Amino acid sequence: MSLAIRLHVTSTTIFHYCNNTSKKNPFSHNCTKFKANPIYHFDKLSHLVFSHRKKMSSLTSSRGSCGLTVKSSLIEPDGGSLVDLVVPENQRVAKIAEAETMAKVKLTKIDLEWVHVISEGWASPLRGFMREDEYLQSLHFNSLRMKDGSIVNMSLPIVLAIDDEDKEKIGASCDVALVGPNDDLVGILRSIEIYKHNKEERIARTWGTTAPGLPYVEEVITPAGNWLIGGDLEVIKPSKYNDGLDHYRLSPQQLRDEFDRREADAVFAFQLRNPVHNGHALLMNDTRRRLLEMGYKNPILLLHPLGGFTKADDVPLDVRMEQHSKVLEDGVLDPETTIVAIFPSPMHYAGPTEVQWHAKARINAGANFYIVGRDPAGMSHPTEKRDLYDPDHGKKVLSMAPGLEKLNILPFRVAAYDTVDKKMAFFDPSRAKEFLFISGTKMRTYARTGENPPDGFMCPGGWQVLVKYYESLQAEDGVQNSAVLSAR
Amino acid sequence: MSLAIRLHVTSTTIFHYCNNTSKKNPFSHNCTKFKANPIYHFDKLSHLVFSHRKKMSSLTSSRGSCGLTVKSSLIEPDGGSLVDLVVPENQRVAKIAEAETMAKVKLTKIDLEWVHVISEGWASPLRGFMREDEYLQSLHFNSLRMKDGSIVNMSLPIVLAIDDEDKEKIGASCDVALVGPNDDLVGILRSIEIYKHNKEERIARTWGTTAPGLPYVEEVITPAGNWLIGGDLEVIKPSKYNDGLDHYRLSPQQLRDEFDRREADAVFAFQLRNPVHNGHALLMNDTRRRLLEMGYKNPILLLHPLGGFTKADDVPLDVRMEQHSKVLEDGVLDPETTIVAIFPSPMHYAGPTEVQWHAKARINAGANFYIVGRDPAGMSHPTEKRDLYDPDHGKKVLSMAPGLEKLNILPFRVAAYDTVDKKMAFFDPSRAKEFLFISGTKMRTYARTGENPPDGFMCPGGWQVLVKYYESLQAEDGVQNSAVLSAR
Repeated sequence: MSLAIRLHVTSTTIFHYCNNTSKKNPFSHNCTKFKANPIYHFDKLSHLVFSHRKKMSSLTSSRGSCGLTVKSSLIEPDGGSLVDLVVPENQRVAKIAEAETMAKVKLTKIDLEWVHVISEGWASPLRGFMREDEYLQSLHFNSLRMKDGSIVNMSLPIVLAIDDEDKEKIGASCDVALVGPNDDLVGILRSIEIYKHNKEERIARTWGTTAPGLPYVEEVITPAGNWLIGGDLEVIKPSKYNDGLDHYRLSPQQLRDEFDRREADAVFAFQLRNPVHNGHALLMNDTRRRLLEMGYKNPILLLHPLGGFTKADDVPLDVRMEQHSKVLEDGVLDPETTIVAIFPSPMHYAGPTEVQWHAKARINAGANFYIVGRDPAGMSHPTEKRDLYDPDHGKKVLSMAPGLEKLNILPFRVAAYDTVDKKMAFFDPSRAKEFLFISGTKMRTYARTGENPPDGFMCPGGWQVLVKYYESLQAEDGVQNSAVLSAR
Repeated sequence: MSLAIRLHVTSTTIFHYCNNTSKKNPFSHNCTKFKANPIYHFDKLSHLVFSHRKKMSSLTSSRGSCGLTVKSSLIEPDGGSLVDLVVPENQRVAKIAEAETMAKVKLTKIDLEWVHVISEGWASPLRGFMREDEYLQSLHFNSLRMKDGSIVNMSLPIVLAIDDEDKEKIGASCDVALVGPNDDLVGILRSIEIYKHNKEERIARTWGTTAPGLPYVEEVITPAGNWLIGGDLEVIKPSKYNDGLDHYRLSPQQLRDEFDRREADAVFAFQLRNPVHNGHALLMNDTRRRLLEMGYKNPILLLHPLGGFTKADDVPLDVRMEQHSKVLEDGVLDPETTIVAIFPSPMHYAGPTEVQWHAKARINAGANFYIVGRDPAGMSHPTEKRDLYDPDHGKKVLSMAPGLEKLNILPFRVAAYDTVDKKMAFFDPSRAKEFLFISGTKMRTYARTGENPPDGFMCPGGWQVLVKYYESLQAEDGVQNSAVLSAR
């Protein structure tokens, strides 16, 4: 155990991780006599853990012979039915011919990820890139009001940017064709609306900062055009990446079908974009145990890594998927009660705003429990030496978010490395000094430097995947350095 | 008529002012076939004008002898009852004695304006400065969820900042005393909660920019402490300013009583922070006429200038109140059907976010119709040559805002100076060239330079008030310049 690890055990870190932060966190001050105030208080978020009543005790959905028509009864998709925007096969030829007559809008790789997301209904009831009224509601209220007055959550603007030249080309057309980076037809956007893309306002209201260095902003927003184009989407065929991982890309409908097939009576989703260590596994297994204690007969874990755009220093998707499969192979998670699938959304790193999107999309996929950690979708401030978001705001905002009332939110129980028992265990504040916190950054440093983490931190098969990945990076760096030298 | 006025007649200005912007605005593109999309569309905001059904045709509220117990039945206050946080007179001595034992927090002039706002129930159901859960909901959702699941609008964080020293002094206390700039006791904040004041995030999410030069930010937020303190407020006595204008400062309850006394069956509120010209008057009189046409028997206008903090180049409150009273004296507005009162809130200049606050507070004051103009609460971008907000976003956001569904929103009909009829008239796009738009900036320039605006722009009595004010400013500048010279 290196000294470097010990440095991570500061009281700040520990108390930020602690469930009952209101009492222990030296940065907050809280009196408990809130009775006079009629507004909903969340003085103890830990009360929310498992405090929700069981919604159903047995699976009552009917099952037809055609999987795609079966609707899981665990939780309704937002808007009542799952959006599916892929054109039926018998209409494709006609749609392709029609699209050829239309003005073309070229999509980036990340636009394509959003087409994937929208077309499969992860953003239900959204049926296309946002028009201005949806955009404004998302930006100001993190939610959309439906025609019947009901509210669905929608915290991130899901928009398509075009430049002046595109706008000119589109002219007064009502429909446009969407083409991929290689000019292949992707779909059609109908009854379009073009409106101003005020990037500064979008960034400020989404991230709560306009500091330079936000990964999604730099990659997507800054280079984008000054107009947004909204409309109803039709997609010519299902999204495929041909990267050997498409079998992991289950749509919300396919996931619902799989939950039904397994006769799940509860589904708890775990969003991640990092390798799974034994602390995560402990948490997931413990969640299942507690759901069983509550009377559920067959809770299923949806281990749901994010598959779209991530920042440069995150572990790439293929490596993560290999690592996750080792974790199941090594028996750390039970394949019988776990489904591993890819969530196709790009990552915004927008903290409390983004965690709502992560949860909302899992409602559409049929999960009725959502595990939320410390500082979800957070990152370091790009220009200041601090976290960009208050680490507790994610779970607080999630617990109060409009349109997420039907979802059971499970705040993360904090796991850390127990140096006495030599395994990952739930943190016990009474013997704080015996626990080590190993951050994602620290974990990556171990793997990069070839140093082993403490025994029991991660299953050996999973760890080897990471070591191999970082070795390959270094080899690549070596080759590139040699190439640079030889080119001189 | 000077050339300078003509320069204001550009097509951009005209079309921005035009009601049906979706067709005429050269900056937007709109197809009308939105039927496939289930989400609430506002393709034609002008449809909202007078499209709401009349809520009641006669006044049914009971009237007791004690004005303060009568509840207007036109529109319910948010949360069901008006908040009133002024300590009953027979408890004052005891409260003052109790407060003496508490840690003291010193309020600024603008903090006092918020104490006034909260204590009279303009922000009902808020009962004090926001705790963190309220702050987060305001920042992310522009609304608060009540215990019964209902939603009230709350778009601006109403918070009290303290510094490290204050926090230290408060220690583990549950209650603190609030004192004014001269250390006079103002009230008590009970069951307090202290949490971090992330200024950057607050500014970005409230204004949609972090550019330097936002008036409220520079005046209030930047110099404030790094902590926010929330809690339940008790105010020792009603807020008074002793500036000769206190008789205009009617509380929401007093306004409701006055509406009842006048047997109003509709109340339409007009928020402003500028002098009233004949275009405003035309609009207000026309609104009354149309309400009468709809079957209301006695619609009352609440002419409701903002009385708190405004930016340095706005016309000061006392001058505006004198100008407004001239407008009534000159018969431009009918005193029988108009109530002029002061709205005690400070101004944020936060556009679509702030206009919700302006409307929500008027619900609490008993107004069931709210007139919204072009670019409400907007200003120029502090560092770029453009409006900070899209001029149409205010009314769009207001029409979709959670918690404001019960309020009838009346988008501004555009008035301009008709150079043929030589009076303010509703803009007629078919003879656009015959209209002049005179901005607030332009109006102030006239008054400052002593130039008269076109006849019929403003009643002579009102105009003289402005001329006198700007003359006094110049005289003051002269005195100050002489003082500087003589000091050299």
